[in-house]
Amino acid sequence: MPESPLRILVWNEGVHEELAEPEHIGEIYPEGMHGAIAAGLRKHLPEAEVATATLSDVEHGLTEERLARTDVLLWWGHRAHDDVGEEIVDRVHRHVLAGMGLLVLHSGHFAKVFQRLMGTTCSLAWRNRGERELVWTVNPTHPIAEGIPNPLIVPEQEMYGEFFDVPEPESLIFISSFAGGEVFRSGLTYSRGHGRIFYFSPGDQDYPVYHQAEIQRVLANGVRWAARPGHGREAPAVSNPAHGWFDESHAGAGASPGNS
Amino acid sequence: MPESPLRILVWNEGVHEELAEPEHIGEIYPEGMHGAIAAGLRKHLPEAEVATATLSDVEHGLTEERLARTDVLLWWGHRAHDDVGEEIVDRVHRHVLAGMGLLVLHSGHFAKVFQRLMGTTCSLAWRNRGERELVWTVNPTHPIAEGIPNPLIVPEQEMYGEFFDVPEPESLIFISSFAGGEVFRSGLTYSRGHGRIFYFSPGDQDYPVYHQAEIQRVLANGVRWAARPGHGREAPAVSNPAHGWFDESHAGAGASPGNS
Amino acid sequence: MPESPLRILVWNEGVHEELAEPEHIGEIYPEGMHGAIAAGLRKHLPEAEVATATLSDVEHGLTEERLARTDVLLWWGHRAHDDVGEEIVDRVHRHVLAGMGLLVLHSGHFAKVFQRLMGTTCSLAWRNRGERELVWTVNPTHPIAEGIPNPLIVPEQEMYGEFFDVPEPESLIFISSFAGGEVFRSGLTYSRGHGRIFYFSPGDQDYPVYHQAEIQRVLANGVRWAARPGHGREAPAVSNPAHGWFDESHAGAGASPGNS
Amino acid sequence: MPESPLRILVWNEGVHEELAEPEHIGEIYPEGMHGAIAAGLRKHLPEAEVATATLSDVEHGLTEERLARTDVLLWWGHRAHDDVGEEIVDRVHRHVLAGMGLLVLHSGHFAKVFQRLMGTTCSLAWRNRGERELVWTVNPTHPIAEGIPNPLIVPEQEMYGEFFDVPEPESLIFISSFAGGEVFRSGLTYSRGHGRIFYFSPGDQDYPVYHQAEIQRVLANGVRWAARPGHGREAPAVSNPAHGWFDESHAGAGASPGNS
Repeated sequence: MPESPLRILVWNEGVHEELAEPEHIGEIYPEGMHGAIAAGLRKHLPEAEVATATLSDVEHGLTEERLARTDVLLWWGHRAHDDVGEEIVDRVHRHVLAGMGLLVLHSGHFAKVFQRLMGTTCSLAWRNRGERELVWTVNPTHPIAEGIPNPLIVPEQEMYGEFFDVPEPESLIFISSFAGGEVFRSGLTYSRGHGRIFYFSPGDQDYPVYHQAEIQRVLANGVRWAARPGHGREAPAVSNPAHGWFDESHAGAGASPGNS
Repeated sequence: MPESPLRILVWNEGVHEELAEPEHIGEIYPEGMHGAIAAGLRKHLPEAEVATATLSDVEHGLTEERLARTDVLLWWGHRAHDDVGEEIVDRVHRHVLAGMGLLVLHSGHFAKVFQRLMGTTCSLAWRNRGERELVWTVNPTHPIAEGIPNPLIVPEQEMYGEFFDVPEPESLIFISSFAGGEVFRSGLTYSRGHGRIFYFSPGDQDYPVYHQAEIQRVLANGVRWAARPGHGREAPAVSNPAHGWFDESHAGAGASPGNS
Repeated sequence: MPESPLRILVWNEGVHEELAEPEHIGEIYPEGMHGAIAAGLRKHLPEAEVATATLSDVEHGLTEERLARTDVLLWWGHRAHDDVGEEIVDRVHRHVLAGMGLLVLHSGHFAKVFQRLMGTTCSLAWRNRGERELVWTVNPTHPIAEGIPNPLIVPEQEMYGEFFDVPEPESLIFISSFAGGEVFRSGLTYSRGHGRIFYFSPGDQDYPVYHQAEIQRVLANGVRWAARPGHGREAPAVSNPAHGWFDESHAGAGASPGNS
Repeated sequence: MPESPLRILVWNEGVHEELAEPEHIGEIYPEGMHGAIAAGLRKHLPEAEVATATLSDVEHGLTEERLARTDVLLWWGHRAHDDVGEEIVDRVHRHVLAGMGLLVLHSGHFAKVFQRLMGTTCSLAWRNRGERELVWTVNPTHPIAEGIPNPLIVPEQEMYGEFFDVPEPESLIFISSFAGGEVFRSGLTYSRGHGRIFYFSPGDQDYPVYHQAEIQRVLANGVRWAARPGHGREAPAVSNPAHGWFDESHAGAGASPGNS
C-alpha cells in the first residue's frame, strides 16, 4: 500500500554540546548527538522525514502541532531532566498513549516521561570508564534484531548494570555485558496505550557510539518497529456502551468503544 | 522457617457506605466493603493481622508508620479517587516499589496510585446492569488460581470490558465474560520495583460479591502471593560501583549495589 | 528496500471436502477451505505468490524443495492429524525453527507439528452448536490487530473454550467469547528458533468463516507478521567458540556462532 | 494448613561418576552430583523427603509409581541423553503436564524431555575453560531469587552463551556473564500443562558448583516454587461440555471440564 513518509523527530536536551562537556564532544559530535542520530536514520530510512529539536527550542521544540505530525520521537537526555517542563512531559506522555512511537536512549532512562510510562524508579548501576560493551541478541526473530551482528561490539562505553528497575519488558531483545563483568538488559520493548516504546542503552556523550553503523541500524529498526503511520492519534478512553452495542456497530452505525 | 504473621491492611474510600449509595449498601455490607473483605481474609488467613482504613481517617489511615508495618495493602476506591492526597499517593507508590504488596480491586483501576504504577490511562468499558460474570482461569499453575473453580460464577456484577488500557501483565490469570458478550482480563499480576501487584476486578458496591466464598479465596491467594514478609522495605536505587566491586563484596565486606 | 514477493503456502488436509462432511461444505467452500483462504490472502497481499497443497498430494505437497521456497505456511487440519507422516512433521518443524513462518488455524491446535512446537497437549473445550463468537482485541498495538474491528463478530462458529493447554503466548492479541459464555484465547503468537508462529482459532468446516472480510484481514496481517523473507533458512545450532572469537569476527573474518 | 512433606527426586544419569570423567570427579563429588544436590536440598528443606535415582537403575529409577509420588524432579544429564528410553521420556513428560515440578540443570538443556517440553533445539554456545561466571538477578521479586546475592559468583564454570534456543521464558530470573564476555539467560521459568519448570545452568561435572551454598539455595527455592503438593496428578484434556454446563456444576453436580 502506498504510504506517506515516516516523520521522525530526534530530541536531544543538547546541554552537553552547549557546555562542551566533555571537551571533546564537539569533535565526536560536531552536529550534536541528535545530528549524528538523525544522519544515521536518514541513511537507513532515506524516504523518511527526519528532524531534530532540543531543550532550548520554544516549548523544547515539542509543541502540540509538532508532536501531532510525528510518527516516532527519539529521546536523549541526561543533565537536564528536571528542566523539561511538566506540561511538555504531559504532552509527550499523552501522544505516546495515543499512538506515537518513542525511542528512549541511554541516560533517557531517567527522563520524566520514561519514568511516567514505566511507573518505576528506572534506576540502575553505572560506571564511566570506557569499558567495552558486548550487545548480545537473545530474540533473533524480533524485527529490531534484523541484520544486527551477534555480538554487536561497542569498543568504549559507559557501563550500565543490573538491577535495572523497569517493568518486565514485552520483548527482551538485547543483553549487554561489560568488561567489568556486569550485565544489562540493553534493548527492551513495551507498549503503553496505543503507542510502542523501545529503550536502547548504548550511546553516550563521551563516546562516538552513534556513528557506529550497527548502532544506527538498531535505531532505524527500532523506528520502523515503533511507527504506526496509519493509526489515528487517539488514546484509549473510558466508555459506557449499551447492551449489544456491537450489533449496531457491525451494521456500520457510528462510533463504538474500544476500537484499536 | 518461623515467620511473623502477615500484616494486611484493607483500604476502602468508604464513600459509598457513608452516602448510602446505593441505598441497599448497608444491608449487603453492614461493616462496609472493607469489613467484608477483611472478614474473608481472616477466614482464609487465620494467622494474619487484618486491619482496615478509610479515606476519612487521618492521612486516610495511610501514615508512613502504618505502611511500614503493612505487608500487603488492598485498595478499593471509586467516587473519591481525586480526594486522595498527592502526598499519600507518593507514599503508597514508594512503599510498593520498596516491596509492599498491593491488591487493586474493581474500580480501583482508576486510583491514582494504580495509574502511576501502570503508566497508562487504565481506562475500560463498563455497564452496570447486574450481568452474570463468568471468571475463567487461563493460568492454572499460578498460585492465585489454586482451588478456584473454573469458571467462578458471579451471579450479578457490573460489566467491565476490553480494551483495558494497562500494560501487558506478567501473568494473566483470569479472563471474564459477561452476559452481554464482553470479555475482560480480570486477574492480572505485575511487579514494580521490589513490590508485587495483583489487580482483580470482580467486586462492587451494588452487589454482595465480597461475601462469595470463591472471591474471598482469590483475595486470600492474592495476598499470600503478593506478600514478601522477609524483605526489607527498600526501593531500587541508582548506584555507582567500582570496577570489580563484587570481589570485595563476595568476601563479605559491606554494602553492595543491586541486592534484591 | 526492493524485496521479492512473499511466497505463501496454504495447507489443508482436505478430508472434509473429499468426504463432503458436512454435506454443505461444497456450497460454502467450492474451492475447499484452502481455496477460500488463498483467495482472501491474494486480495490483501496482491504482490504475494499464494499456492495450496493438501494431504493427498505427493509428500502431502510439503517436499523439502517446496518448504525451502515458502516464507509462510498456513495449516488447517482436523480429521486426519494422524495421517500426516512423521517425516513430514519433522520437516515442517525443522523449517519453522529455521525461520519459516507458520499460521495454525482452528482445529490445527491438535496438529502434530503444533503439539511438537508447543510441548503441551494443546487440548481445549469445544462444542459445535453454531454459537456467535465475538473476537475482542486486547493488544491494539500489535500489527496483527491493525484494522480489525473490536469486536470482530463471527455469526456462527464452533465454540472453543478454556483451558487451552498451550504455553503462555508471547503476545495475546485476541480473546473470544461465545454465546454460551465460554472464553478462548483465540489469537496468540510465539517464536520458536528462528521462526514466528501465529495461532488463530476462528474458521471451521461447517461455517463460511473464511469468506468473512475481517477474518481474511487477520490472516493477511498474520502472514505479513510471520514472514522473514530476508532471513536465511537456518535453525539455531550448538557452537563451541574460542575465547574472544568475536574480536576476529568483528574484523569480518568469516563465520561466527550465534548470528541471528 | 498442615501439609505432607515435599517429595523430591534428584535424577542424575551418573555416567561421569561411573567413568570417572573427569578423573577428579570422585574427589569433588564422592556421592555423585546427585548426592551433593540432594544434600543441599536436605539442608534447606529439612522437612522434605529427598531421594536420588540414576540411569542404571531399573527403568532409570523413574517408574510410574515413583513419579506418581514425586512432587519435584531434578534432572542432570549430559553424555547419555540418547540412552534415556523413549517410554521414560513420555512418562516424565506426561507427569510434568499433569502437575509434577521439574528442575532442569546445566547440560540437561539437551535432555530429550526438556526439548520435548520446549519444542526447540535448546542449542547454545559453550566453552569449557573454567571461566568465572557471574549470575545476576534481574527479577528480584521472584521467589526463586529470595536471599540470593547479586551477583552470585561461581569461581570456575563451563561457559554457556547465547543464543540459547528456548522459548521466551515466563520469568527471566538470572542472567550470567562469563570472563570471556559471553552472556546467558541462566535462570528461566516455564509452565507446561499443570506443571512448573525451572531451568538453571550453573553446575557441571568438572567443578564443585553444587557444593556452593548460594547455588544450593537457588535449587531449594526452585523446588519450593515448582512444587504443587496439593494438586491432583492430572494433565489437561479435551472436553465437550454442554451449553450452560457450569450452571449444573455450580450446584455441585459432578465432574466438569477445565478445572485447574
